[in-house]
Amino acid sequence: MSNSSHFEDSRGERAKNRAEEKCATTTNDAPSAENFPSADRRAFLQGAAAAAAALAMPRWASAHPGDMDAIRAEIEKRHDASVKRLQDWIRQPSIAAENRGMNEGCELTVRMLREAGFQQAVKVPTDGQPGIFATLDAGAPRTLGLYYMYDVKQADPAEWSSPPFEAALVDKPGLGKVVMGRGAVNQKGPEASFLAALHAIHGAGKKLPVNLVFVAEGEEEIGSPHFPQIVRRPEAMAALKNCLGIFMPSASQGLDGEVTMTLGAKGVIECELISSGEHWGRGPRKDVHSSNKARLDSPAWHLVEALATLVSPDGNDPAIESFADKARPISEAEKKMIAEAARRLSEAEAKKLLGVEHWVHDVSWREALELLMSRPTVNIEGLVGGYTGPGGKTILPGKAVAKLDLRLVPDMTAAEALAALKAHLAKKGFGDIEVRMTGGYDPNSTAADAALIHVETEVYRKGGIDPVILPRSAGSWPGYVFTGEPLHLAAGPFGLGHGSGAHAPDEYYVIESKNPKVHGMDGAVRSFVELLYGLAQAN
Amino acid sequence: MSNSSHFEDSRGERAKNRAEEKCATTTNDAPSAENFPSADRRAFLQGAAAAAAALAMPRWASAHPGDMDAIRAEIEKRHDASVKRLQDWIRQPSIAAENRGMNEGCELTVRMLREAGFQQAVKVPTDGQPGIFATLDAGAPRTLGLYYMYDVKQADPAEWSSPPFEAALVDKPGLGKVVMGRGAVNQKGPEASFLAALHAIHGAGKKLPVNLVFVAEGEEEIGSPHFPQIVRRPEAMAALKNCLGIFMPSASQGLDGEVTMTLGAKGVIECELISSGEHWGRGPRKDVHSSNKARLDSPAWHLVEALATLVSPDGNDPAIESFADKARPISEAEKKMIAEAARRLSEAEAKKLLGVEHWVHDVSWREALELLMSRPTVNIEGLVGGYTGPGGKTILPGKAVAKLDLRLVPDMTAAEALAALKAHLAKKGFGDIEVRMTGGYDPNSTAADAALIHVETEVYRKGGIDPVILPRSAGSWPGYVFTGEPLHLAAGPFGLGHGSGAHAPDEYYVIESKNPKVHGMDGAVRSFVELLYGLAQAN
Repeated sequence: MSNSSHFEDSRGERAKNRAEEKCATTTNDAPSAENFPSADRRAFLQGAAAAAAALAMPRWASAHPGDMDAIRAEIEKRHDASVKRLQDWIRQPSIAAENRGMNEGCELTVRMLREAGFQQAVKVPTDGQPGIFATLDAGAPRTLGLYYMYDVKQADPAEWSSPPFEAALVDKPGLGKVVMGRGAVNQKGPEASFLAALHAIHGAGKKLPVNLVFVAEGEEEIGSPHFPQIVRRPEAMAALKNCLGIFMPSASQGLDGEVTMTLGAKGVIECELISSGEHWGRGPRKDVHSSNKARLDSPAWHLVEALATLVSPDGNDPAIESFADKARPISEAEKKMIAEAARRLSEAEAKKLLGVEHWVHDVSWREALELLMSRPTVNIEGLVGGYTGPGGKTILPGKAVAKLDLRLVPDMTAAEALAALKAHLAKKGFGDIEVRMTGGYDPNSTAADAALIHVETEVYRKGGIDPVILPRSAGSWPGYVFTGEPLHLAAGPFGLGHGSGAHAPDEYYVIESKNPKVHGMDGAVRSFVELLYGLAQAN
Repeated sequence: MSNSSHFEDSRGERAKNRAEEKCATTTNDAPSAENFPSADRRAFLQGAAAAAAALAMPRWASAHPGDMDAIRAEIEKRHDASVKRLQDWIRQPSIAAENRGMNEGCELTVRMLREAGFQQAVKVPTDGQPGIFATLDAGAPRTLGLYYMYDVKQADPAEWSSPPFEAALVDKPGLGKVVMGRGAVNQKGPEASFLAALHAIHGAGKKLPVNLVFVAEGEEEIGSPHFPQIVRRPEAMAALKNCLGIFMPSASQGLDGEVTMTLGAKGVIECELISSGEHWGRGPRKDVHSSNKARLDSPAWHLVEALATLVSPDGNDPAIESFADKARPISEAEKKMIAEAARRLSEAEAKKLLGVEHWVHDVSWREALELLMSRPTVNIEGLVGGYTGPGGKTILPGKAVAKLDLRLVPDMTAAEALAALKAHLAKKGFGDIEVRMTGGYDPNSTAADAALIHVETEVYRKGGIDPVILPRSAGSWPGYVFTGEPLHLAAGPFGLGHGSGAHAPDEYYVIESKNPKVHGMDGAVRSFVELLYGLAQAN
């Protein structure tokens, strides 16, 4: 997609994915035997909380023990400062959808970057909210890219048990001490933990083992409409092209401690199909009394008839002509990954979390996961037309709208998919129906053998977690700006730790974990330190 | 329909018809030559307001001049009291949808009936809001039935230029003095004018020329759910069966002074089609992340596919099996009425008011009117499912709803049409989709040669208005309780005068008209007096 003006609103797509697709990738309770001996596991489950907490991170076997001991000590010493930094950040709301606190949030983030050691950190103007570009030159041979967001989703204080911008420390039964507030997990908590890692390394008197190139946006929650304007500036492109990959700090652990990694994500188009008498030239332009249906065409029926042409009669398979022509079938290697994931993930748990009894076409668990990874989709997000209140109202509406999202797999593109949709409607006699794209972008893909993926996997394993690896997320994030032309970077989220409630009330991020399988903030900070050292040493 | 529990809510269907179907029946500017000589018409258009007002009612040539002169004098003498009675009534809101002031409104109406001469006037309990049954025995040979509503539609004071329950007298440019308030035209204004007619006749020392049987409901604006419980009580049935017809006082004049009469009305079913994972057993029970479309069925698509089977591919003709099997084709006599109406009514004006350029199938004006009168319909009132706010939200909704209304012509019945809809859905594989009927009833029909219709027509003609007569209204009102088994009464609205804004802000009823073609309240009162005397003398 080259036209950024199309990217108006995709509702914090990527963040939602992390929160809501847990159900897509729920792991079994039992970690795989080779990485998590059952005797250890019993100990975790049976021991006292303190003993368990000590046992929970037994595998931080660093490749550089001296450095690591010192850094670990710094992490613990700086724990309170790290928590306070996160609280300060949460207390500065930056909500793009409300144009609230954007400059303040941007400037606070720039200041925090400078304090964490970035020599260069500048606000980057866009046609929307400003982004940030920053670099930290450690004189290291390797450079890692970082993707941040500084905006957060809206929050209605009435729905929260602790005010969303107070960032209170709250004891959450079964989990431990958490910071509660908007942005706690999405995304300030993990991002602050990464900054804490930089402070700890510096505090231990060490030089960062890799250089950093940083880009941030303030419009993630409204669909990253101007993100290409930040990434595609010459200085950013010049710096990013030397990176061995780019990642976003993330709290990747589920409540069971497990982690699922994805090698990319589907692309997406969000659009509205608008059928109106105004545009059609038939039927009424505004709502009229429904008795007139006997003599007037109906834009609502027109929309229904158009929608019915977009999918197979069971509503499941896209029927838009040429839409999926370029969809690349999943490879044998991807099929193997999925089969392994199907073996490790619990179908029953996934169905329970989704509240479903049947997969589409009644396929098996493995096939359901294959469809999830590989299938382009045409989904109805919403229908809204005419009278939508309680009971009825006898009108013939002048307008009806369907909100769709179309998911794209490699090598489909958002531009081609949109063009196919429009051409299909025109050919079927619905050319008058307006297609208004409100957000979207291309799919992205990272090779399984990329150094970034390899090191991330190793860090998880050192932490006692054998991640499930999937060919891609069925959700979407705008990683195409990194993985696509011309950068071709590996990209994806990474980080231990846990939080939940993204886009929901009582969002939280675990500070001190009482769950032996889940890392608190210090564990998350360590995972970032491990990543940096791991990348420095990767072959 | 025998099951009154189905009649939950059809949004003040009949009242809306009057207000919104004006566009269906807009008359030509030119009254027909034989009843309204063009010289007179020119005088109306050219004369000063006062001269025009004097000329506007030259044809109140009563069959009983002595009586009429005395009564007319009483009407004028009692004008202020009549207006005050209406204002007092408007100042007592009775809003069934909000269960507000219902008992007070019912009791006030009962009191007003007694003051107007009804010897018997009692509150009639129902399973919902109370109705009223009243009788006025004048010892006359003939008896007329009356249908009233004492409830009004909701009103948001913020939208009104004069508070909706203050009943202020307001000068409306081009129209004259109006009373503004909720219920002014729908229906308290015309109803109060009828009561004023009774006061005037009594005040003139005359006996009422016919006896009256009165039924009222307080749930007209929520679809008359318990109306049969009022009408079908033995004492009401015994009294009603002697009536030569039943009418509701109405302000039937358009801004151009013209009147359109309808010999009945279509029946209606309002219902919701609810497609849900809960009921279907496929797809999610609640909204889940839209990426899951790849592996889950979609209740929203299921609804779209079901809807598409209900109509022809252009969305215009019902395709529900057996739905219209009993639809009676329009007769030659009805075709003649429609052809005459097509000649007199302005197609251009109707299209302009509806905001349309084409009739369905691009039919002619006459054919469009024929369809309007004769065609059963399946209309989408509203679509509501999943995310309905601005922009998009990446969900796969667990539920989607279509609000439909189905219009029925004689000899279809609501019960049979509902059964046909359910059977059709089941047969097409959509038996899981719930059909929730929220309101509706059978069509009603009154013979063109009924005495009531004859006298009403004559009264209009005496007032200088040649009404357009249509076989039926394309909208609906629950007149079937009168016209159907076992009463078989002629039924319909009647009355001169004008108002507008039913269900909308700034609802008004004209008190003193400055428009020579439109009668004020006293003219409306006279039209009711004429009707009573006309019926007493009818052959």
